[in-house]
Amino acid sequence: MKLFRTLISFEAALKTVLSYAKRTELEEIKFDDAFGRVLAEDVLSPINSPPFDRAAMDGYAIRGEDSFGAAPRNPVSLQLKKRPIGEGGEESGLEIGDDECLPIATGMPIPQGSNAVVMLEYTKERGDTLEIFKPVTPGKNVSFTGEDVKKGEAVLRAGKILRAYDIGMLASLFMSTVKVYKRAKIGIIPTGDELMDPAVHASELSHELRQQKIADSNSYMLTALTSTIADPHRMGIVRDNYEELKAALRSSLEDDCDGLLVTGGSSVGTRDFLADAVEELGEVIFHGVAIRPGEPVGFGLINNKPVFVLPGYPVATISAFELLVRPFLYAMHGVRAEDRKTVLATARKKIPSAAGRTDFVRVKLIRTESEYYVEPLRVSGSGILSSMTKSNGFVVIEENKEGVAEGEQVMVTEYSTL
Amino acid sequence: MKLFRTLISFEAALKTVLSYAKRTELEEIKFDDAFGRVLAEDVLSPINSPPFDRAAMDGYAIRGEDSFGAAPRNPVSLQLKKRPIGEGGEESGLEIGDDECLPIATGMPIPQGSNAVVMLEYTKERGDTLEIFKPVTPGKNVSFTGEDVKKGEAVLRAGKILRAYDIGMLASLFMSTVKVYKRAKIGIIPTGDELMDPAVHASELSHELRQQKIADSNSYMLTALTSTIADPHRMGIVRDNYEELKAALRSSLEDDCDGLLVTGGSSVGTRDFLADAVEELGEVIFHGVAIRPGEPVGFGLINNKPVFVLPGYPVATISAFELLVRPFLYAMHGVRAEDRKTVLATARKKIPSAAGRTDFVRVKLIRTESEYYVEPLRVSGSGILSSMTKSNGFVVIEENKEGVAEGEQVMVTEYSTL
Repeated sequence: MKLFRTLISFEAALKTVLSYAKRTELEEIKFDDAFGRVLAEDVLSPINSPPFDRAAMDGYAIRGEDSFGAAPRNPVSLQLKKRPIGEGGEESGLEIGDDECLPIATGMPIPQGSNAVVMLEYTKERGDTLEIFKPVTPGKNVSFTGEDVKKGEAVLRAGKILRAYDIGMLASLFMSTVKVYKRAKIGIIPTGDELMDPAVHASELSHELRQQKIADSNSYMLTALTSTIADPHRMGIVRDNYEELKAALRSSLEDDCDGLLVTGGSSVGTRDFLADAVEELGEVIFHGVAIRPGEPVGFGLINNKPVFVLPGYPVATISAFELLVRPFLYAMHGVRAEDRKTVLATARKKIPSAAGRTDFVRVKLIRTESEYYVEPLRVSGSGILSSMTKSNGFVVIEENKEGVAEGEQVMVTEYSTL
Repeated sequence: MKLFRTLISFEAALKTVLSYAKRTELEEIKFDDAFGRVLAEDVLSPINSPPFDRAAMDGYAIRGEDSFGAAPRNPVSLQLKKRPIGEGGEESGLEIGDDECLPIATGMPIPQGSNAVVMLEYTKERGDTLEIFKPVTPGKNVSFTGEDVKKGEAVLRAGKILRAYDIGMLASLFMSTVKVYKRAKIGIIPTGDELMDPAVHASELSHELRQQKIADSNSYMLTALTSTIADPHRMGIVRDNYEELKAALRSSLEDDCDGLLVTGGSSVGTRDFLADAVEELGEVIFHGVAIRPGEPVGFGLINNKPVFVLPGYPVATISAFELLVRPFLYAMHGVRAEDRKTVLATARKKIPSAAGRTDFVRVKLIRTESEYYVEPLRVSGSGILSSMTKSNGFVVIEENKEGVAEGEQVMVTEYSTL
């Protein structure tokens, strides 16, 4: 039982894992399948948007100059042209002359000869004549060609996680496909003799047995966490048997996995056992990081593919995931760091932590009308999963910092729901 | 062409739509399919967690009292018991007596007779004896039964959008299924003669034609926005033909849709056209809200099912979605309001808005080490989709407020990527 090892700093560990993050390949997919995917190339607009000068308000297209001098008690009168009734849509041939106007709704192309739209509320129709009660300068209430997006302009930048609006932008430019980073296939292997799979065994377990067994919750959490960025591939529980473990590692990497997350059981010696297997099949790069919880986290390579050895305790696994695996997955998929949301909040109570290690502290973020407060949870052991479900975010306290004082401002990463 | 109408206030509109939000039915699904779903019932723990008293550190299980008086230069010596080698996992029969100890790793049940764990680093094994250099009080480094979760305790509350950690919690309690709100089926109908479907027509369109046509981007954006909470069901483009429109409305409601989002085209008269069809088939509750953009938004009922009539301009549609449709969908699915993320930021520039209407302003949120700033985007017409893709959040300025002054603090809702 060799549980001691040299710990490396969090910064060194992060730098190391990022240096092994190989960007995934590009793939071209339909734009409407790209929601939540990471853009792999800048998107340059092939067209101007709007594609033509169009009305930005409901009203009448006019030559702005024709309205000069208009006033509530001294309206300008223009000749009201009618729209041709019929097919609709094909309106491009329309034209007005001096002192003429044409009814127009937001979004329609303005007719040849016009350069402004006078809003409905400043007008009154009288038969074939339109009275205008307020002048408009040329250009008023018109969206000009390319005002939204110019042809050749980079509208979306590589590295962006595509939002609903970005999908809309791709649609509006008639970009039917888009290049994104392939989602890496990440194998997730829970290990441990004491574990039972709740999806398989819940119904058959007696009440007594449930009290004695530990449910495998880690692999399900890791699957959900991974699924927002990569394709998780959850394997069955591997028992604490060295040969079985090696076989599982080998077969998941042969099975096209681009990387593995292996979580340890909590039995004596299991952790080194995992690292030993990685070392035998490949190479352990580090094992043990000065973070808390999550200290026993390890990282290695098998067949040049990254393997994270994660602690068996749920909160320790989450801590290691958030501090090391998530940045690694983001780097693999080319995500820009700015896509991670943080909130600055004032510590309402002291948040204790020891110098010499990086702390992952579960907190409660409280929003008031004028300020954000943050409080650490009282119970915070690494086995206390309720510290995750009762918290709504976490604070990372750097190695060289001894806790956060009451009243100090601190950066909180909020959990995302998706 | 009847474009004028009485506008109701945003507050009145929101109150109205929420009063028609019928909660969806419950369904029981597998816990590992529940990521991102909304919990419909409190989850009460059927068990204690941990199910037994267990070690919270690696080290040796002892009776804490036996270590009293231990010091670096005056260690206490205890008799070191060995673990039975063999099956592993089944360790429950273990026991220690006075002045005895047993090696133990984090997570293992502590043996009968023990009440504390002394950490590895304060000990030294010498043959059959363990030297302890630091005393531990009884209870130290032990997670006691039910410390994480007590039997009968509500671990997750109804209305929560289930996060990865919540899935982990369900797993750890052997809850193989969970009750969530059914995802409503929301039909999305784009209308307009001028629209072309980029998914269908992009490849066949000549460069010239693309410059003249408007791509249907709204239905794709609404599909993505809706998909984070409900099941969107995107229909093909409906032309500006009254009978066609009525048929489309009818068939999508017959087609089991629980609600509809219909977006208008930008041709003259189209908007009232949509409202007229809703009125003929059912009832228009309101049409026109004092929000900007998004003013022409309407809401009605057909067969007692909610129908939103959304403006054709993309930013206007998003504004109406964020201000009215999203809260409606949240209410339908029982989501607690607190699940919406906001950030308090200081306006770096004046954010203009007019009194008498609620403004939806696209902003750029800038994070510095010590503060958050917010700036409005320069270009902000409701046709300017790039105002969405270039911004990273929005600010809602209330009706009775005339803009946000430079230096004022304001609440920003950040776009979520998923």
